Amino acid sequence: MVNEKETSGGLELKANVIDGSSKISVPESGPIRSTWLGLAGLVLRLISKVRKFFEKAWSVGVDDPRKVIHCFKVGLALTVVSLFYYMRPLHQGLGGNAMWAVLTVVVVFEYTVGATLYKSLNRAAGTLLAGALAVGVHWFASQSGETFEAIILRTSVFLLASAATFSRFIPVVKARFDYGAMIFILTFSLVSVSAYRVDKLFDLAHQRFSTVAIGIFMCVLIGILICPVWAGQDLHLLIVRNMEKIANSLDGCVSEYYSSTVIDDDEEYSKKIKGYKCVLNSKGSEESLANLARWEPPHGRFSFRHPWNQYLKIGSLIRNCAYCIEALNGCIYSEIQAHELIKKHLSSHCMRLSSNSSTVLKELAVITKTMKKSSTIDVSVAEMNSAVQDLQNALKMNFLPTQLIPSLLTSVEETRDLILTMATTSVPVLLEVLPLVTVTSLLIEISARIGEIVYAVEELASMTGFTKPAGDENKNRQNKPVNSDDKGVVQETMKALQQV
Amino acid sequence: MVNEKETSGGLELKANVIDGSSKISVPESGPIRSTWLGLAGLVLRLISKVRKFFEKAWSVGVDDPRKVIHCFKVGLALTVVSLFYYMRPLHQGLGGNAMWAVLTVVVVFEYTVGATLYKSLNRAAGTLLAGALAVGVHWFASQSGETFEAIILRTSVFLLASAATFSRFIPVVKARFDYGAMIFILTFSLVSVSAYRVDKLFDLAHQRFSTVAIGIFMCVLIGILICPVWAGQDLHLLIVRNMEKIANSLDGCVSEYYSSTVIDDDEEYSKKIKGYKCVLNSKGSEESLANLARWEPPHGRFSFRHPWNQYLKIGSLIRNCAYCIEALNGCIYSEIQAHELIKKHLSSHCMRLSSNSSTVLKELAVITKTMKKSSTIDVSVAEMNSAVQDLQNALKMNFLPTQLIPSLLTSVEETRDLILTMATTSVPVLLEVLPLVTVTSLLIEISARIGEIVYAVEELASMTGFTKPAGDENKNRQNKPVNSDDKGVVQETMKALQQV
Repeated sequence: MVNEKETSGGLELKANVIDGSSKISVPESGPIRSTWLGLAGLVLRLISKVRKFFEKAWSVGVDDPRKVIHCFKVGLALTVVSLFYYMRPLHQGLGGNAMWAVLTVVVVFEYTVGATLYKSLNRAAGTLLAGALAVGVHWFASQSGETFEAIILRTSVFLLASAATFSRFIPVVKARFDYGAMIFILTFSLVSVSAYRVDKLFDLAHQRFSTVAIGIFMCVLIGILICPVWAGQDLHLLIVRNMEKIANSLDGCVSEYYSSTVIDDDEEYSKKIKGYKCVLNSKGSEESLANLARWEPPHGRFSFRHPWNQYLKIGSLIRNCAYCIEALNGCIYSEIQAHELIKKHLSSHCMRLSSNSSTVLKELAVITKTMKKSSTIDVSVAEMNSAVQDLQNALKMNFLPTQLIPSLLTSVEETRDLILTMATTSVPVLLEVLPLVTVTSLLIEISARIGEIVYAVEELASMTGFTKPAGDENKNRQNKPVNSDDKGVVQETMKALQQV
Repeated sequence: MVNEKETSGGLELKANVIDGSSKISVPESGPIRSTWLGLAGLVLRLISKVRKFFEKAWSVGVDDPRKVIHCFKVGLALTVVSLFYYMRPLHQGLGGNAMWAVLTVVVVFEYTVGATLYKSLNRAAGTLLAGALAVGVHWFASQSGETFEAIILRTSVFLLASAATFSRFIPVVKARFDYGAMIFILTFSLVSVSAYRVDKLFDLAHQRFSTVAIGIFMCVLIGILICPVWAGQDLHLLIVRNMEKIANSLDGCVSEYYSSTVIDDDEEYSKKIKGYKCVLNSKGSEESLANLARWEPPHGRFSFRHPWNQYLKIGSLIRNCAYCIEALNGCIYSEIQAHELIKKHLSSHCMRLSSNSSTVLKELAVITKTMKKSSTIDVSVAEMNSAVQDLQNALKMNFLPTQLIPSLLTSVEETRDLILTMATTSVPVLLEVLPLVTVTSLLIEISARIGEIVYAVEELASMTGFTKPAGDENKNRQNKPVNSDDKGVVQETMKALQQV
């Protein structure tokens, strides 16, 4: 919005407001003018920053309206819980500890149900464990006389807090009980410290626990009943989306490589090609979603012990493909480029392989998304496999001295000329073939890695019992009268692919 | 430790205790025996799990003793803060709110100084802002009469909590003020809700703020004074370590590819090769460290506005190299392998390029680590550059029909035989050359990407003013009497490298 241009004399400032309705009148005299301009510039920059911030916020809301709904859910939970405070009988029943319910809601209510449950259960377990331990330590200390009591209490806080803090560094604990360990330290310290003053320790513990329970109950209830966001489903969709992105990037890269016209002006298209970049760095979010999904109850098509780890495995195989596409992208935009004529030799084979590979990926995405087996995936894998072999045959045919032999045998002079020409100008100089060969070899590598994804999705299907699509069983029986074992065919073709 | 073997009759269980001192006596009769064995197996499995857990915990402590120190720091801070509670005069001065200091320490004390400061400042700012706003809303509500008061209070909690929750989804806010937003909601809700009951609102706010301040002060003091862990320094070392890992992996991959003996039995060696895998997924930790480093005061060689973003840039360029090494690794372990004879043609050139590339990386690691310019980096980059050109020349020389021409011109029969042999057996069939060419092309791509890292480190050096090594200026002057501009030479060689 703001263009600043430094001229030799002073600072000239133009404010281009989009609607053109406002124009800034500039005073004449020097120092006042520059101060005024400086201030105006500051204000305009501020306004544009604020506007950008709100545009960003707006796009966050538009991209995922569930986030907006989540905000109102938090507001609702807080309002409901604070009613306990406003209502005199309830407030007195809880002994003035109702604020713990408010605190619990603020701290525990997370975006996904899994995260809310993870924090809730950790909070409850941590509070219970630490409370019981603190009461025990307090009883033990009170038996040991006035002098030792304080020492025992302080030492126990020091030792248990240190131990619990250390446990948070251990990977297993960090992944599942990090929050619980923190709450353990918190509760143990608070109870140990308060016990020195508060006589009715059990009453305190009881009240605190029931307020925490009210807060947790409210969060889980509102979280699950009103537009729930499931971490498991998000992970499921993330994996599916990543497959689609890789398929699109692969298609886009190869067709960009072989297209004679430059089409990277098209923003939509270039965004499609760059899709794989999101996949490169998705490990963190996949792992955290899988960790949270484990806490979730059965929902939709996901049972209680849904194999979330298999999703992580598939995700990492997809990332392996993405690494190859990164290298492929490097070749495509590299400064050394194969000669157009040489590129054409293999273009149809490369295009075919890449489109077959991306078809397999897209089918895998559909299979994973719908959780239904597909009868066409075997055919697609077999086609990809044959495309790999055709490409390799084409390589043999096009770039070997064998093509010279027929002419050699008919006329020696002719051959000599041909070889001389070859050596000086027209025939593929290896340096020119190099990027093309690299692209080809990466495409073959990508198809091998897609093969591994096919395996992993097959495993997922057998773990969770994907159903066959409706009306498909008859078709299958017709097509494969003898050997109708789906897995067998895929494994066979995969084996063939690996031998290649 | 535990071997389970299912035999046809029953379950035979062997407990192999390492020291061999204990043996389990097995009862004779059937059902009791199997129950007993089942129980014993369960206990043994449990023991081995617990032992594994403690081994893991031990290795966490041994790998980074700073973590152990951190735990004792937390224990110390908690013990010191709880003293406020035990001491009667202090406790009365804080109106029984001393527990907020304990709570603050537990929640705010993080592993790195940056994280502690981030949480502290966010907590302080969130508490102050929300407290002031809540008092304002409360005053406004109290002016509007009994009926409206409750409505205004509840509506304000609902709206502000929703808005603050939404702000946590906006990337800028999430990166820097996520915790502050949560504390804002917490404090605003608590104060709004309590205000309905507590008359002395200002006293409450004052006490709460001073207890939070005591907690924060204690955390920051202990965090900075006793063995501080700086996020900035960790980021710095992470980047250096990543450069070294990439250099080692590159060396390892290429020498494994060209070594005739299989050396992947050696665990140490294979760990070295796999080092790049850590780099692939380091984006998350780099970004979070950079976010935290921004909160830290100047420490060691890092000034207040140290360009942490440049570290992120260098980190992402290193990751680009890692992607290429991933693809390289794929080629090296691929099932299609170039013939040993063909591999030998280029081995010396490839080895030279990879060792030059890794030398450049190692020098960059030293430059970044010591924050001192090096006088030899230009020479190393130039050597890498010339190695690239030599490799390309070697490609031209070795795989072109040009080598046939001399013989062709002397004797036609000889040539015909040669070409026939070539076509049938011995001369490089492209399919066999394919992996070799891919390896070569990836090595060239990696050297180009290392060139980008050189640029980025130069930028970092000029941003933070890296010093020259002691006694080096004279040497420089002697070697380069005319054009002693370091950057010029690097840029020149880089330009040459890019034209390649």
